[in-house]
Parts: sequence; C-alpha cells; structure tokens
Amino acid sequence: MSLIVQKYGGTSVGDAEKIKNVARRVIKAKAQGDKVVVIVSAMGDTTDDLLSLAHQITSSPDEREMDVLLSTGEAVSMTLLAMALRSMGQEAISLSGGQAGIHTDSVYSKAQILRVDTKRILKELEQGKIVVVAGFQGINEEMEVTTFGRGGSNITALALAAALDASYCAIYTDVDGIYTADPRLEPRARKLRDIGYDEMLEMAVEGAQVMHPRAVELGAVYGIPILVASSFVEAEGTWIREVVEMEARNKVRGVAHDINVAKVTILGVPDRPGIAAAVFEPLARVAVSVDTIVQNASVEKITDLTFTVARTDLARAKRVVEPVIQEIGAKGMVTDDQLAKVSIVGTGMQNAPGYAARMFRTLFEAGINIELITTSEIRITCIVHESRVSDAVRALHKAFELEKIEP
Amino acid sequence: MSLIVQKYGGTSVGDAEKIKNVARRVIKAKAQGDKVVVIVSAMGDTTDDLLSLAHQITSSPDEREMDVLLSTGEAVSMTLLAMALRSMGQEAISLSGGQAGIHTDSVYSKAQILRVDTKRILKELEQGKIVVVAGFQGINEEMEVTTFGRGGSNITALALAAALDASYCAIYTDVDGIYTADPRLEPRARKLRDIGYDEMLEMAVEGAQVMHPRAVELGAVYGIPILVASSFVEAEGTWIREVVEMEARNKVRGVAHDINVAKVTILGVPDRPGIAAAVFEPLARVAVSVDTIVQNASVEKITDLTFTVARTDLARAKRVVEPVIQEIGAKGMVTDDQLAKVSIVGTGMQNAPGYAARMFRTLFEAGINIELITTSEIRITCIVHESRVSDAVRALHKAFELEKIEP
Repeated sequence: MSLIVQKYGGTSVGDAEKIKNVARRVIKAKAQGDKVVVIVSAMGDTTDDLLSLAHQITSSPDEREMDVLLSTGEAVSMTLLAMALRSMGQEAISLSGGQAGIHTDSVYSKAQILRVDTKRILKELEQGKIVVVAGFQGINEEMEVTTFGRGGSNITALALAAALDASYCAIYTDVDGIYTADPRLEPRARKLRDIGYDEMLEMAVEGAQVMHPRAVELGAVYGIPILVASSFVEAEGTWIREVVEMEARNKVRGVAHDINVAKVTILGVPDRPGIAAAVFEPLARVAVSVDTIVQNASVEKITDLTFTVARTDLARAKRVVEPVIQEIGAKGMVTDDQLAKVSIVGTGMQNAPGYAARMFRTLFEAGINIELITTSEIRITCIVHESRVSDAVRALHKAFELEKIEP
Repeated sequence: MSLIVQKYGGTSVGDAEKIKNVARRVIKAKAQGDKVVVIVSAMGDTTDDLLSLAHQITSSPDEREMDVLLSTGEAVSMTLLAMALRSMGQEAISLSGGQAGIHTDSVYSKAQILRVDTKRILKELEQGKIVVVAGFQGINEEMEVTTFGRGGSNITALALAAALDASYCAIYTDVDGIYTADPRLEPRARKLRDIGYDEMLEMAVEGAQVMHPRAVELGAVYGIPILVASSFVEAEGTWIREVVEMEARNKVRGVAHDINVAKVTILGVPDRPGIAAAVFEPLARVAVSVDTIVQNASVEKITDLTFTVARTDLARAKRVVEPVIQEIGAKGMVTDDQLAKVSIVGTGMQNAPGYAARMFRTLFEAGINIELITTSEIRITCIVHESRVSDAVRALHKAFELEKIEP
C-alpha cells in the first residue's frame, strides 16, 4: 500500500464549502488504496489578517510571539478539515507541526527543519486514519512553536513526504500546473507535463511563484516526485521530477519573468581590494538580498559597480549604500526601479550552444534593450525595462517554439 | 514580593487598542512590586465565530478537533498581549495552557484540571517577565489540547492562583463588581464591597453570570480572595472571600434572578420505587441538567412529578421524557417555558428565622404567584412567571433594605 502526501493552499481551504470539497478529494485519494497525509495552509487571508493585528499592536512584534500567533491559522484549517472528513465517515485526526514530529532550529519566522519524527503519524495511519498536518510550522528543542516563512506549507509537505518515503507529494493550488510562460502574458503558453527539479528551481527563483525553492530542493534531494495541480478542477497537473528523457525534449522548457527588480549603479568606484565587501556586507546586515552583480575590469583603476535588488528593497539599499559611497571614495549612485528580469530555463541548454545568442538576437529584433545579463548552467537571464517584459516573454516563447512543446 | 493573578475577559481584549490598554494596566500592577501572571480569554466574538465555522462544516463536530480549534482564540490574544507588553519595554512571554503546566483529564470540551506544574511559569517570573497564559485550556496525558467549556478562563485564573499561592486573583470584566441585584432591573441596586464564597456560589448558580461556579469553588477551597472589577474604568470592585464580620452584616446580601427556566410536569405518575430513576437517568444521559424537583407524597398511589430545566434544554427534555411516560404508565405531560427564578442569598439567613416568610409575603403583596419553592441553607428561591421577574426583584430588594447596604 503506497503513501501519498497532499498539500492544499490557503485559497483551496478559503471557506467551509471549499474545505468540504477538499475533504471529498482526500477521501477519493484514500479510496484508491493509499495512505494519505494532508498538509493545509491557513484559510484565505488569515495569515495577512493576523500580521495586520500584530502590527496594530506594535511595529516590531516579538518573533517568538509572532510564530505562535501565525501558527493558529493552520490550526484552524486543520481541525476544520479533520471534522469534515469525520463527518463524511472517514476516520481522521489533525496534528500540529509539533505533534507531527517536525523539529526545527530556533530561528523564529524562518526556521529550518532539523529532523522529522514520524512515530505519531505512522501510528495514526496504521489505525486507518487520514492524518491532517498543520503546514508552515514545527517546534524547536524547547518545544516552542516555530514557523518557516511564506510558502512554508510546501516545505512541510515535502519534508513529510521525504520522511515518510511517500510515492509522491501533490501540491494542490490555484494554478493547474507549470507553464512554459505566464499565461497572463503569453496566451499560447503550454502547460508542461513534467519539468526537472533544477529547471523548476530556476523558474521559481526567476519569478514563477508556484513553489518555494526550499520545497523544490527537498524534493530533489530526497527524490520525491512533486505534482503541481489545481485544487478546484480535475485536470492533469505538472510533475516536477528527475527527468530522464532529456535528449528527446525541447531544450528550453520555459520563459520566466519577474518585475520586482531594481538596479543600483555606484559610479566611479576605485578599483582596489575590499571594495566589494565594503558595499555588500552592510546590505547583508539589513537583509537586502543582492541578485546580479556586474563590475567591469578597469583600466583606469576606476570602475562602475552595478547590482540588482528586489524593487521592494530599493529604499533600504539606498539608505545603506549612501554612507558607503563617501567611505570608499566613489563619485555617486544612480538607481532604476523600472526593470524586470526575463529568463529562459532548460536543463538541455547546458550541453547545447547557441541559446544565449538566439535569446539576445530575439530581444534585439523585438527592439528590446538589454540592461544586464546573468546566467546559470541551465538559465539565461536578461534584465530589460519593465514596460517591455510582455513583449520579451512573447518573443522568446515564439523563438524557442514553446507553443509546440509536448504537454 | 507578592504574586498576583489577573484575568481579562473577551470584551477586555476585543481589539488592538483594548489590548494595549490591558498591557498598561498590567504594567502598573507589576510596578507595585508584584509578580504578575495574566490570563486572557479569546478576543471578542472569536469563540462564537470559530463555533459557527465548525457548524458550517458539520452539525456534530469531533470534540478533540473542536478543542484544538477553540484553543486558537486564546493563543491569538495571549501573543498580542505579550507583544504589547514587550513593545512598552516590559519583558513578557505568552504560554499556552499546556506550556503553563495545566494538566487535565481527557473529557474534551469540559475537561477538569488534575494538576498544575508551575515550573515553567516560576522560571519565567524569576527572570522578571510578566507571564501571559491562555485561558480556558490545558493538555491531557497524551499532550492533546483540552478545553474547560464556557467561562473556562476564570477557572484557569483561579487554578493558577491556587497553584502559585497568589495573594489574590483579579477578574477584570465588563461589569464593575457584584451588585445586590441586577442594576438593569433595580436601579437602586448597590455594589457590594465583599461577598462570601458561598453567597457568590448561590448568586452564580441563580443567574448572576459574572463568575462560573467552578471558579468560585476553586477560590473557596484554596482560600484565594477573588476581586471582580471593571477592565475599563478604575473603580473598586467586589471582593469574593471568606467573610468574617458576619454578625454585623445585613443577613440578605443580594437578589438573584434567572429567566432561563422551564417547568415540566408529568401527570398521573404511579407512586412506586424506580420512577425517579426512570425519568431522570435518560435526562442525565443527554446532559439535560435538572434543577428543582417536586413530588407530592400521594394518598392515591398516584401523583404529579414536577421539575425545572433550563429553557434552552426544554425541547430536548420533552423528547426524552415522552417515551418514558408510556413506559411508566403516567397520564401525560404539561410544560411551561415562561418562568423565571428569583432568589434571596445571604450566609446570615441560615441562623436567622423568618426570611422565607418575609419573602413569600413580599411576593404575595406584590400580587406575584409562586409556582415552586426551593431552598438551600443560604438561599431561598421562588419560581414565578417570567413577566413578573422585574417586579419581584424590586419588591424583594426593597423589603430586605438592600439599597441601604454598606458598600
């Protein structure tokens, strides 16, 4: 008898009717002879409502208290789902993160899972019950509640799938799979039947927000296939898994984009050791995550240093960089908060040349200026003006024939 | 250094502003050199909202799941109060019932406290923190969340006050004390400066809904003085405690009333052993609590059996009693759901005759018919028609000169 893990996001359990629908789907899965563990997020906007309440109390809420506060959202949805299952004649029990044996470090609000003790879950499964687990949370060594940050319920799902050696982990959400591009920008975008873990990681980092990279990584490390599918309609979703038929596939699997991009250029930077540390250490201290960094080798011992940050971090980045400019003897700073990233992603690209060239030519022919370029082994990213992001996605989708991709 | 326990009810922590007000009051208490443990209820209508959600899912929600669901209400308010305290520069920590060491039996939704392990609370108090504890809940031996039923936060408060040997336990609520009668019915009602545990128990059972009898009993058994006062205004409340100056006091301390009363009369009951069990055992099984029972000794070996129940239980009581009538060979049943109880309460009455006679005469002179009479050592209760309850309260308040009582 196989064991599967299912996860339902916040919109999927948004009200009583939706919770009953989820219960019916879970029972159907169990009827196929599977043991089922279900992870739920908080209902609808609950987490935002709780955050807002805390911020009405104080602008800097204590993190330990905040984690307990936020964890109540999942406690509500898990108990309601367990009640719904039982009212339909299916034995079920809800478990908090701690009761489910999810042990974490003590970094409140972004805790990492240290180990999963599956004893209690296995005991309940043995008794024929469906086990409903609160997503997004665990307990630390002092038995205090910790949470994983946004997207944390997917992390719970993958961690339990790995610890329980599940056949697969299904993530039910409000999109019905992973597409070759955002269908809101490119109507010809195709839903992928499958995508590799690495590819999904690059897509996730580059703006396809369906899956948190930490969850995808867990799937990759433990070899758990992940199904991303709709919780509302019965339709095949997309499998994220180790893809073997690599040769036969289209080399580019998708076009990702992200409009939350801003650029900072520090002008006239003296080219001597220690400059990079002087700039980037203060940014790290205030938790500004720096993405692309470009620094031209200089002839004159003077250069421009450019980097990108999330647009939402730009104000903070400017405040931190301003005093550094004085300190290192640079000439000044210019910023641009009207940028976007467009990426092509595909494992096949790493052994096949010419993709970058084809991407640059496509954007050139569409009259789109490239501000910065950054690449990984399986991804090429161009930073362009925000107003051109739709054009860029559509042009690239066409150039790499993604509308013809086998679903 | 003394230790005090404070409890704030749902309306007292109804929104962020009110929680900040509570935080200021708690800090003021701590500034007087006391160690402070604060118990909070769920915010405003939270508990009702969660109950309603559960009933949208199923008409018979699982009790274990329900207790976890309801316990989230107090988790929210306790974390917000701890955040508020910390934002005002006061070290504080919130603890769930389980973390606070409140161990109960496994009777979900009306669990009883078995023991309190104060280790964690004492450790946090030693560090100078204010400890905020979720009311209304504990954990059983399997570490499952249990709840105490409505009014349960007062039980938490008294249990912790007893276990921590607190100087007193303050119950802050939306009334500012215990009155000689309900001020909405009798404008001349006076706030009492103090009242004995026994008197308060009789008042509570007879409709003065401020304190759950279980909480008052805990105070009496462990000798913890209880202060009932307003959480909104600074005014002296009422002390519930062992009252010693009994002789000097007015013998009647208050007039209580309760309009949630219905009467059931079973007609033509054969007068033989086993009849009472046949009637009342089925009622107990469906958790209908029977109050007054009257059965006249019969000459004809046939009698009428009358009892009262909460009006809200009448429909259930009728369903249970109907088949019993057949079974025992009685003639039929009549019910009346338009009744109310009016009681006079006072420890002094037990050694002083004439109170009952004065009560009956007062009601007679006011033209109020008495349907049933029931007494305890320190209480006399008359059951009257609901439409006359205000008249009865005012007449008795005057007859026993309660408007002249020393506050």
